[in-house]
Amino acid sequence: MQRYKNLPVLITGGLGFIGSNLAIKLFEEGARVTVLDSSIEGCGANVFNLAPIRDRISIIDHDMAEARAFAPVIRDARVIFNIAGEISHINSMHQPERDLNLNTVAQLRFLMECTASNPGVRVVYASTRQIYGVPNQLPVDEDHPIQPVDYNGVHKYATSQYHAMLARTGALDTVTLRLTNVYGPRMALRLPAQGFLSTFLRRLLLHQPLEIFGDGEQLRDPVFVDDAVEAFLIAGSKPRVASRVYNIGGPGHLSLNQIALISSEAAGVAAPSRRPFPGEIRAIDIGSYYTDSSRAARELDWTPRVIFAEGIRRTLDYYRANLPHYLDRVSAT
Amino acid sequence: MQRYKNLPVLITGGLGFIGSNLAIKLFEEGARVTVLDSSIEGCGANVFNLAPIRDRISIIDHDMAEARAFAPVIRDARVIFNIAGEISHINSMHQPERDLNLNTVAQLRFLMECTASNPGVRVVYASTRQIYGVPNQLPVDEDHPIQPVDYNGVHKYATSQYHAMLARTGALDTVTLRLTNVYGPRMALRLPAQGFLSTFLRRLLLHQPLEIFGDGEQLRDPVFVDDAVEAFLIAGSKPRVASRVYNIGGPGHLSLNQIALISSEAAGVAAPSRRPFPGEIRAIDIGSYYTDSSRAARELDWTPRVIFAEGIRRTLDYYRANLPHYLDRVSAT
Repeated sequence: MQRYKNLPVLITGGLGFIGSNLAIKLFEEGARVTVLDSSIEGCGANVFNLAPIRDRISIIDHDMAEARAFAPVIRDARVIFNIAGEISHINSMHQPERDLNLNTVAQLRFLMECTASNPGVRVVYASTRQIYGVPNQLPVDEDHPIQPVDYNGVHKYATSQYHAMLARTGALDTVTLRLTNVYGPRMALRLPAQGFLSTFLRRLLLHQPLEIFGDGEQLRDPVFVDDAVEAFLIAGSKPRVASRVYNIGGPGHLSLNQIALISSEAAGVAAPSRRPFPGEIRAIDIGSYYTDSSRAARELDWTPRVIFAEGIRRTLDYYRANLPHYLDRVSAT
Repeated sequence: MQRYKNLPVLITGGLGFIGSNLAIKLFEEGARVTVLDSSIEGCGANVFNLAPIRDRISIIDHDMAEARAFAPVIRDARVIFNIAGEISHINSMHQPERDLNLNTVAQLRFLMECTASNPGVRVVYASTRQIYGVPNQLPVDEDHPIQPVDYNGVHKYATSQYHAMLARTGALDTVTLRLTNVYGPRMALRLPAQGFLSTFLRRLLLHQPLEIFGDGEQLRDPVFVDDAVEAFLIAGSKPRVASRVYNIGGPGHLSLNQIALISSEAAGVAAPSRRPFPGEIRAIDIGSYYTDSSRAARELDWTPRVIFAEGIRRTLDYYRANLPHYLDRVSAT
């Protein structure tokens, strides 16, 4: 495909899970890639993620809140993929103001620099299903009410409103993708707060049987990172988007029990056990969730292709080959 | 009525327009009133607003961002009316980060202190119709999409999401009122950015004919401040609220031409003239707006009672008697 051939692109949070997978794919498609990442503790940055292309792209170590310092990079970008952020819901409840600073204050400064240095540029923002909170009905489409259950959801949604408002006023050409649980190579396994799939993977790679909170019948629709990356590539390159907000979900929904069982079998680890919900996690649990991605199918011609059994196999293969780079700060318990 | 008799209440932004009218009414109903206001430039504080009760209530000069400093007041309050904020849409486009600090960062710190010092307390938050942006249809009810056209709307909505989220998790008992254009005694006439009714009043009191931007056929539903205050009093005292978000609109909708004509006649000033929209104002103009307040009528038993002709007469009477206290920093042009 020629859609990114020789195109200068900027990826915020490009050392993280989704950002690094996106950077590698963009490089493969011929883009001139600049990655911005200041490796803020807890946000998932890992320089090893970019090992395959590290010497052939530009990596900038700047906080996005200091956007003026790298204004020329913003000015030259033809597409900006805005992936940076703190994603931990639990951290946000312990340190709400830290979450506000990372997810909203820094984003405001960055977006203001974008409007000043590169008015009208396409910006693709990584939002999250978490803003929907406990679903009123399933599957969840883009018109579902916004009712986050934690500070992280409030802040992520505020920043998605920046993107929407700046598109409304013509300042930027923004598209927001609301992602369900993304999994795959380059997830940060050493962050206990990065979601259940990350926790599952870490345990399996350490040959520990999985533990499921509650009855395990909650539904999820994990999306493999390659599918999510393809949604970003389309959203960044499609000349006109009919809507500016798209749900990005997986190819099917599974219960946590099914997800745990498939993963354990793929990893060759004993069957999962159940335990009661820790109170702190119960407070922000949203029950069952799965995505209606039909708008993305209709308008972006995007559909997820990798089923969970296949995706988890590829994920485990990646980590088995690169484990030390992801477990170095994990305690063995 | 006995609903606030001897009740300790806290009003943030209590030196401002709505906050001061609310403070006076609460005092009249027997409440023990504490007003918090740090008189931040541009936010509408005016110590004269509380002249009738100044010596019989408690006034605290603290930034709400330093909530820990007045934690005992938060702890003792039975109801908190959270009115403080920067309301200028235009200022927010010039200084987005100032608006973020005033409307969201400071509110986060305040609300965190509320959850720590007085968990479960009733908090009534003053939100705004501006979060709806350009209406998709009229009248606008609470399910209308949130699509603000300026930073102020994004930030005010983020803070209303704090309130909603904290109610969802059981941390606070919050109610949010989304107010249409409120007018009446104690508006800050010296702030050019406080909305068209403030601008209209200032000109009329200076005996200058009004100017209308555009064709003047945009609709609005101004609500008299006494009606808005009654909505706060109900929202603060009703033991259980079925919903947590209520639109508060006026008793009818009028065109800007009608509003200008009625106001000019009441003031004895020559008829209004028209002029083209200044670009900066056109960019954030939302066209016609009026409110569907039927949820508030149904669940709070609240309806607006003061028609515009009567409200504007009472407003002009107030300012004629107290003009120097509101015009002292106005230029005569």
